[in-house]
Amino acid sequence: MDDVLGAVRDRRPLVHCLTAAVSMNFVADALLAAGARPMMTETLEEAPVVVGAAQALLVNLGTLSTDGMTGIPATVRAARERGLPWVLDPAAVGLPPVRTAMARELLASGPSVVRGNASEILVLADDGRGGSGPDATDSVEAAEAGARCLAERHGCVVAVSGPTDLVVAPGRPTATLIGGEPMLTRVTGTGCALGALVAACCAVAEPEVAARTASAWMSRAAERAAARASGPGSFKIELLDALAGLQDLTDDVGER
Amino acid sequence: MDDVLGAVRDRRPLVHCLTAAVSMNFVADALLAAGARPMMTETLEEAPVVVGAAQALLVNLGTLSTDGMTGIPATVRAARERGLPWVLDPAAVGLPPVRTAMARELLASGPSVVRGNASEILVLADDGRGGSGPDATDSVEAAEAGARCLAERHGCVVAVSGPTDLVVAPGRPTATLIGGEPMLTRVTGTGCALGALVAACCAVAEPEVAARTASAWMSRAAERAAARASGPGSFKIELLDALAGLQDLTDDVGER
Amino acid sequence: MDDVLGAVRDRRPLVHCLTAAVSMNFVADALLAAGARPMMTETLEEAPVVVGAAQALLVNLGTLSTDGMTGIPATVRAARERGLPWVLDPAAVGLPPVRTAMARELLASGPSVVRGNASEILVLADDGRGGSGPDATDSVEAAEAGARCLAERHGCVVAVSGPTDLVVAPGRPTATLIGGEPMLTRVTGTGCALGALVAACCAVAEPEVAARTASAWMSRAAERAAARASGPGSFKIELLDALAGLQDLTDDVGER
Repeated sequence: MDDVLGAVRDRRPLVHCLTAAVSMNFVADALLAAGARPMMTETLEEAPVVVGAAQALLVNLGTLSTDGMTGIPATVRAARERGLPWVLDPAAVGLPPVRTAMARELLASGPSVVRGNASEILVLADDGRGGSGPDATDSVEAAEAGARCLAERHGCVVAVSGPTDLVVAPGRPTATLIGGEPMLTRVTGTGCALGALVAACCAVAEPEVAARTASAWMSRAAERAAARASGPGSFKIELLDALAGLQDLTDDVGER
Repeated sequence: MDDVLGAVRDRRPLVHCLTAAVSMNFVADALLAAGARPMMTETLEEAPVVVGAAQALLVNLGTLSTDGMTGIPATVRAARERGLPWVLDPAAVGLPPVRTAMARELLASGPSVVRGNASEILVLADDGRGGSGPDATDSVEAAEAGARCLAERHGCVVAVSGPTDLVVAPGRPTATLIGGEPMLTRVTGTGCALGALVAACCAVAEPEVAARTASAWMSRAAERAAARASGPGSFKIELLDALAGLQDLTDDVGER
Repeated sequence: MDDVLGAVRDRRPLVHCLTAAVSMNFVADALLAAGARPMMTETLEEAPVVVGAAQALLVNLGTLSTDGMTGIPATVRAARERGLPWVLDPAAVGLPPVRTAMARELLASGPSVVRGNASEILVLADDGRGGSGPDATDSVEAAEAGARCLAERHGCVVAVSGPTDLVVAPGRPTATLIGGEPMLTRVTGTGCALGALVAACCAVAEPEVAARTASAWMSRAAERAAARASGPGSFKIELLDALAGLQDLTDDVGER
């Protein structure tokens, strides 16, 4: 995975992000810290053109704005026409019907990777299931079958983040990685930043390797940051420093 | 007040925030640091549904967007139908007519708490008065009569923040608390974060106690942060750490 | 330039910012750290009224929203009617046609200062040239002729930021300043913050002196921050502390 980390830093991929307003700034800083470059415009007038200059696209449905609702589908179409890798992050899906419908429609458009927490993945895998907000209320283990089902049905990689991270690719064994520091749930936008990091890695590697690398990158950075922080404020700052400073990712991937 | 602080950390209330774009990220981080959980979507399509999963609502009128202008009234209606406590923060009211009109309409909808600086409270209390921007140009003392008038007229708690904080509840003596560190005015969104903290406390306590607790929580955290900071950047980070780390709130409430 | 820095801190100008969503929070914090006061609402309903209370206006085209597309031209008209100084920051111009058209229209409305990176200035100076995203792909030296052409044609000051900063005023020699710390390109919004700082300085000084002062202020603060930081996260925090703490700006302006 270290070669993917190195490739992001060498090639500095431009990642177009249609993402939640609440964490845009942190997502952009996380991409820059990792070595990639963010671009964030979301309107129908701009986003489908701008994505043409990008090497990957992130679509995150958190705080879905009116601009986003019209801009996102057109931008995904433009990205697909160019063969760009793209990541779908179905943030807080299941609660508002408009977001759930858009997530299902986007899923049918063939994302390279779907990244979410356990509850978000379970909502996408099961038509009848509702959501309960931005936080996971299901365990990562409980989401594995749902992630497998989504991966096989849509032919995409599915990444589930939590205390353990899972990466499920069609026809391949499930990868398990040592997942997130608990402190990651005490600051806004770390999940969104992980989705953006997956997109940055997709610009330089195959989706399955990209998802594994991004997971390890974020988890190792979070461990280092937690060891140095005195609370959630300093954790966030240390996390950016660690995303930039990490030199190698210990290969802690298991398979099952 | 320590039991309210403890209850926020134990129950982790979900606080739906319709709030200023400029400080959304900091408001979300402040809620997470305090132990609550933020949710931020603001469109008419999503917000009135999403609020159904929340335990409290914050409406802050700073940087009122087109999405917010349609989403806010419908979300307040949905919150009232469910009997949710909600906080109105009339940020920078009085300058643009559309914001003043919306603030007055929302005030008539019965918020649990109105939180603002002295000038914002005076604009709401006096139909003929204009505003001058985001910062207070009146003293907290000058706003006490206006706060009392609003509280009695609308049957809600009114919290005024400044060098001294006031909490005025209908038919009760005015509470005075040692208020804000001057450094709180040197970073964006501390007033917005205080409003969100009032909402989080309203999810677990009566509005008057909630407003007092939030005021003491923010003020004690700011004192601790200011003692450790080297400037406004580090103050903001220390403030988040202190919101998370404070163990008890010295009871410094006076009455008059 | 030290008297301009002192005047910003003494007079605390209110700077209305119509700016990129991705960095609104950092721009507001940078203005507050410098001693100025930000105001950020961007809708057609609010912004043209609110600008009437400001001492300067910043228009930044990054992440141009639908609200911004209608609010910006009307707000610029309102600012011009009041004789307010205003700064145009044509962020990432050249890529989406709607942004390029708006930048050209705004340029024709007579900004006090145009601030951009080398590539953005070259796009504005040359009708046929396209853009490539948020980052400069041209050298500051290559942009000098374009900056001169824009300054003379439109009668405005043009500031180009990069490893060296240039300030070009009509009929005057080009000023060169020791420019940006490389770390400035590793966090989001430092260019936007520089544009806002130019606007704050324009509230208390002539545009050419304002642009020089803001450039030196940001560069000296960035040098100090880089010396103390362990990565991009801590750099951003140190930068805010340094914007607030700097006591004098060594006069490093050359002319050519």
